[in-house]
Amino acid sequence: MSKSINRRQLGMGLIAGTGLAILDPSMLGQKNSKGTRQLDSRWSQVGPGIWKATIGSPEAISPVSSRLVEPRSEALRAATLVGKPPLSPPEGSIRPRGTSLTLPLAAGEEIYGFGLQFFSVRNRGKKRTLRVNADPRSDTGESHAPVPFYVSSLGYGVLVDTARYATFYCGGSRDKPDLAVDIESGGVLPMSTEGLYSKGLSENQSSKILVDIPGAGGVDVYLFGGPTTLDAVRRYNLFSGGGVNPPEWGLGFWYRASANATNSDLVAFAQEFRERKIPCDVLGLEPGWQTHAYSCTYVWNKERFPDPVGLIKELKSRNYHVNLWEHAFIHPSSPLFTPMVNLSGNKGVWGGLVPDFHDPKARQIFGDFHGTTLIDSGIDGFKLDECDNSDYTGAWSFSEVSQFPSGPDGEQMHSLFGLGYQSALWKQFEQRKRSTYGLVRSSGALASPYPFVLYSDLYDHRQFVRALVNSGFSGLLWCPEVRDAKSEEDLIRRLQTVVFSPLALINGWYIPSPPWKQLDRKKNNANDFAANWEKLEGRCREIIGWRMQLICYLRAAFARYATDGTPPFRALALDWPDHTGIARTEDAWMVGDRMLVAPLFAGEPGRRLTLPPGQWHNFWTGEPVAGGTTIDIPAATHKIPVFVMDGSVFPLASITNSTADPASRNLEVRVFGDGHLPFSLLTPEGDSLHLTWNAATRVGTVKQQGNYRYTVATWNSASPTDSQPA
Amino acid sequence: MSKSINRRQLGMGLIAGTGLAILDPSMLGQKNSKGTRQLDSRWSQVGPGIWKATIGSPEAISPVSSRLVEPRSEALRAATLVGKPPLSPPEGSIRPRGTSLTLPLAAGEEIYGFGLQFFSVRNRGKKRTLRVNADPRSDTGESHAPVPFYVSSLGYGVLVDTARYATFYCGGSRDKPDLAVDIESGGVLPMSTEGLYSKGLSENQSSKILVDIPGAGGVDVYLFGGPTTLDAVRRYNLFSGGGVNPPEWGLGFWYRASANATNSDLVAFAQEFRERKIPCDVLGLEPGWQTHAYSCTYVWNKERFPDPVGLIKELKSRNYHVNLWEHAFIHPSSPLFTPMVNLSGNKGVWGGLVPDFHDPKARQIFGDFHGTTLIDSGIDGFKLDECDNSDYTGAWSFSEVSQFPSGPDGEQMHSLFGLGYQSALWKQFEQRKRSTYGLVRSSGALASPYPFVLYSDLYDHRQFVRALVNSGFSGLLWCPEVRDAKSEEDLIRRLQTVVFSPLALINGWYIPSPPWKQLDRKKNNANDFAANWEKLEGRCREIIGWRMQLICYLRAAFARYATDGTPPFRALALDWPDHTGIARTEDAWMVGDRMLVAPLFAGEPGRRLTLPPGQWHNFWTGEPVAGGTTIDIPAATHKIPVFVMDGSVFPLASITNSTADPASRNLEVRVFGDGHLPFSLLTPEGDSLHLTWNAATRVGTVKQQGNYRYTVATWNSASPTDSQPA
Repeated sequence: MSKSINRRQLGMGLIAGTGLAILDPSMLGQKNSKGTRQLDSRWSQVGPGIWKATIGSPEAISPVSSRLVEPRSEALRAATLVGKPPLSPPEGSIRPRGTSLTLPLAAGEEIYGFGLQFFSVRNRGKKRTLRVNADPRSDTGESHAPVPFYVSSLGYGVLVDTARYATFYCGGSRDKPDLAVDIESGGVLPMSTEGLYSKGLSENQSSKILVDIPGAGGVDVYLFGGPTTLDAVRRYNLFSGGGVNPPEWGLGFWYRASANATNSDLVAFAQEFRERKIPCDVLGLEPGWQTHAYSCTYVWNKERFPDPVGLIKELKSRNYHVNLWEHAFIHPSSPLFTPMVNLSGNKGVWGGLVPDFHDPKARQIFGDFHGTTLIDSGIDGFKLDECDNSDYTGAWSFSEVSQFPSGPDGEQMHSLFGLGYQSALWKQFEQRKRSTYGLVRSSGALASPYPFVLYSDLYDHRQFVRALVNSGFSGLLWCPEVRDAKSEEDLIRRLQTVVFSPLALINGWYIPSPPWKQLDRKKNNANDFAANWEKLEGRCREIIGWRMQLICYLRAAFARYATDGTPPFRALALDWPDHTGIARTEDAWMVGDRMLVAPLFAGEPGRRLTLPPGQWHNFWTGEPVAGGTTIDIPAATHKIPVFVMDGSVFPLASITNSTADPASRNLEVRVFGDGHLPFSLLTPEGDSLHLTWNAATRVGTVKQQGNYRYTVATWNSASPTDSQPA
Repeated sequence: MSKSINRRQLGMGLIAGTGLAILDPSMLGQKNSKGTRQLDSRWSQVGPGIWKATIGSPEAISPVSSRLVEPRSEALRAATLVGKPPLSPPEGSIRPRGTSLTLPLAAGEEIYGFGLQFFSVRNRGKKRTLRVNADPRSDTGESHAPVPFYVSSLGYGVLVDTARYATFYCGGSRDKPDLAVDIESGGVLPMSTEGLYSKGLSENQSSKILVDIPGAGGVDVYLFGGPTTLDAVRRYNLFSGGGVNPPEWGLGFWYRASANATNSDLVAFAQEFRERKIPCDVLGLEPGWQTHAYSCTYVWNKERFPDPVGLIKELKSRNYHVNLWEHAFIHPSSPLFTPMVNLSGNKGVWGGLVPDFHDPKARQIFGDFHGTTLIDSGIDGFKLDECDNSDYTGAWSFSEVSQFPSGPDGEQMHSLFGLGYQSALWKQFEQRKRSTYGLVRSSGALASPYPFVLYSDLYDHRQFVRALVNSGFSGLLWCPEVRDAKSEEDLIRRLQTVVFSPLALINGWYIPSPPWKQLDRKKNNANDFAANWEKLEGRCREIIGWRMQLICYLRAAFARYATDGTPPFRALALDWPDHTGIARTEDAWMVGDRMLVAPLFAGEPGRRLTLPPGQWHNFWTGEPVAGGTTIDIPAATHKIPVFVMDGSVFPLASITNSTADPASRNLEVRVFGDGHLPFSLLTPEGDSLHLTWNAATRVGTVKQQGNYRYTVATWNSASPTDSQPA
């Protein structure tokens, strides 16, 4: 991150080098009689494999102009070369209502992205309105983290650089017909609305992407070359500043305690987890730690927490990192109120101030307070709640017509608020040369370097999985957190999902005891535990153990995210965009470069999975499964279905109570098939681990450099059997 | 309706008379450093009890400037007088993004309206985005017929005259706090999101209504005085042109046949209804009558209908009126294609043209074709489908950035399209001095005079009732149509609701036989009927009979709608705005001035109802029930709970097969209590019926004038017993 300066010019200067002169496209424009200005544009190269086209006069405030992290220039230069722009430039229209533009869309082309989407993966034929919304309830494009970036199955990506709530018509909007035809016979009509509507809508025709940006007098469009779809995402992520590489403890297990938990509750909880051997690296505190939470004071409630510094110290001594819940709206009783009152928007939320996070001074004052009062006491991260927007839950957020002193209106601020908030706190850790990893409820464009994982108050398990699948298209991370559960099976299936996600969390904010003790929310609050809870705890312990075993593998995936922008969690469509059947998968995802996770959902009659091309193995049993095979997985399957690419050398860490235990770096290396795919962990800091397997000699080799030292306890090249079958 | 001229000036000239000069409020504006112009405004009287304030430079295209029906000037002059504007004028801000304005909101004041809303009745504290949307799925303000008009419990109404998708923050948006306060103790936190969010949101504080109109450089605001809430609605409806007064046959029973029905199917169907004594005045034809339906040709499919004129004649001879389904998107094989191709927007829908209904020439050509090819053949009305907008169902509609030759963009056109479409066809009937009554899926501001009733593809019974309750706040009519049903009980409860609505319809478009023969959609299509269907048919026949009995009463309610703007179907909040408990009712409505309907919903454990003040009677039994009483109505109650005001003289028509049967004007008059509330039907055409009851002599009197002749068969002043108890 760097100081706030005019990024629009800087962004170009830093990464362009090619320095093509840009014609002012508004000079090409012609006004017609209705006040519409039709504009052509042209691509100008602004970096290796990255082009920009300008329509009209772009607004001063946009994701790129407001960026707070620099592009990863060297990595961009090192990426696969692309010669020419892989797409014709956009055509634009400027009208009093706003700017619209069209971009090409070929027959059969599929479009992915638009940020954290819960309702579908493919966008062809759909309308996507990128409005920030805490409770997206339909497939409209609204989201906690809408991103005006899409990536094509043909291997390019497009960022429409706007902080407005733009709408993308992904091929559904057609020009009017202009030729009369002969009368056709009507035939038998479909007796359903879907049947009637589907007539005249075809995804296989070439068409256009139409983008509607109300309120804007122009916009910049960025094009990211491939040649592959995954390359285009990588390039977008490197342009964003590379992927985040979280601290090792952030990849351990997380638990958020009840909102009303006290100092002694926390200590007892921390002790119980250690005694009962539930791995846990992070304990989260919910609203009750503050004197006032809606809006926030950011001040310890001394009734519940008489000695917060002592508590943090005690938790740290048991290898717990502490994460604090908050939101950004500042209560009049907060010490931050007076310094922030003139650095806030003209509307309030829950009686509190809305910080002008577009202003570096506001970020700094807000951040410094957190730094000196909380981070310096040992707090390792934050959960940034309520920073999105609300339509349904009381319309509590600031309105789109709000005005902020540094310039943005409420609409622009909603698109930028999440990242500004994250930056304010992240910077404090950076200044202290400490790492952090946290949770946030809103994000936006260019988010990949930010050490925060998205979460939400939604809870449908299938939607949670779809969000995980979609997150990787747009540089986002998503936590499908576990809260309560409808049944033991639901708890198990959700927990199996979350341990294969960027942040493995149980959020017990409204239950005082872990859900395995009592699923029923009321009974849990009454400390009325289930008779057989220790059995369920045992199953949960096993699943949380898997997470601990994965940490070395996850570190490698994140290291690659930081280095070359490859999303560590991503849709199958990114690796196999040309295999339509595989690319459509909404309920399975890749973890790293060789692991495919296909979760089960409670109450469903098993599931079906078509494996991508190539040879695969059941992760748990080693059993080979041919790529392209469609398998039916019964509902009763004990473990979550996970598959690993044939040839993988795969490290499994020892299960420890936390990542602070050096034993967590004792590895069992599993070799699937002939082991021709070595395992490499190369961190941006220079640590490396390299594991190879010689199929002929059946001998494995370990090479490593740097601070982290791993020990390989066993090489396991046989197919291990499922240790706990259903 | 009249020719298209500049209505903005005309509207004032016609109804104002007072002719106050209006200052240009933009002259009062001051630009601040961020490009915001803050504007005060002032009310200018534009009619009796109606004022207008102008902020900035209103757009040329708005509901009032595009109005196609004149205000009812004499009726407005005859309405209750209001001296001064009952509200302070709005304050506005013009920014590059659009116009915003604030209007006062007092402590405890409640706000109703915003058009056809399905999810709630009260708006205080909520955000309402008035976007046209075919499938509103959450409580956001989106709707088939959003109307930028609200009415206050304090007795005034406000129309924000915009065709933009405005957002109204009804008291939820607050200014930022500006004073620090002492730290409070946190206390125990609610363990639910709702609990946490509700802190800091109170409906009892005075606040403001904030209106966000993106894309507009100004707007006119109209204020409608009361003094009561119902008076304000009446004044708005008279300003709109008065309420519709449908033909008598329109108030009979309607049935829409299967989309694939042929000529002989229709004839057989019509015969069966007469034989089985199912009353029916209107038969509707669905898409299959056309040669091509998505998009439309408006040309008879001769395979299904070899002799349409003969069919209409035959149906007419059996006293059926014929209604034709269509939508506005013109297929290239339609004879309308060539004449309309240059009178259409630049985007197509389902491969068809989108007519520029803002252009009088487009309305005329489109209408004339219908007039000469369909209306002249005897068609009495249309069902205007798909004229709203789509976000979810394939995004099939024209985009907001569409452009139409006469000026509107797609957003404005969506707000005006439904009314322009209705007008195009209505005018054809007017030219022929024929009356019509039809169905439409989109409407907007100033809709009360249009002879069309809204419907939708939604189907939740409670939502349907809420829409009926809300429709009367904004000059709309709503049909909670019956299609299929989950159970016999569901069919009965839905049918009981629809016969107490503006249009009593079963829509069988996807089932070839009436739902009482077979509820299951698949089996119905396979002509596989339920064993006991004649029993269920009998229950349905009874309910449809109620509708026929109500027609005289409904005619009076509609006549009043036409004359003084009183909505014939309306929320209890309009009659009892000061009784908070009554005004909150979402599941009961008034029909006319003395009947309260409180439906039952299948699968629910009965219902609760608090009766408004005054004395009431059970409509079915005559049994008195005290106002203010809360009654629990068991789920097993046979009939729909209906209550009538004490003293009502209430005419019940004889049940006939159709309204064409003169026997339908034989009345049984029921007298509830002492009969001090006479019954009056005074049509705008001068027909009148006046029924009075002398409690002392126990003698009733009939006076009537005009064409329609009623006969009173019996005066029934005893409490009749329920003839068919549960």
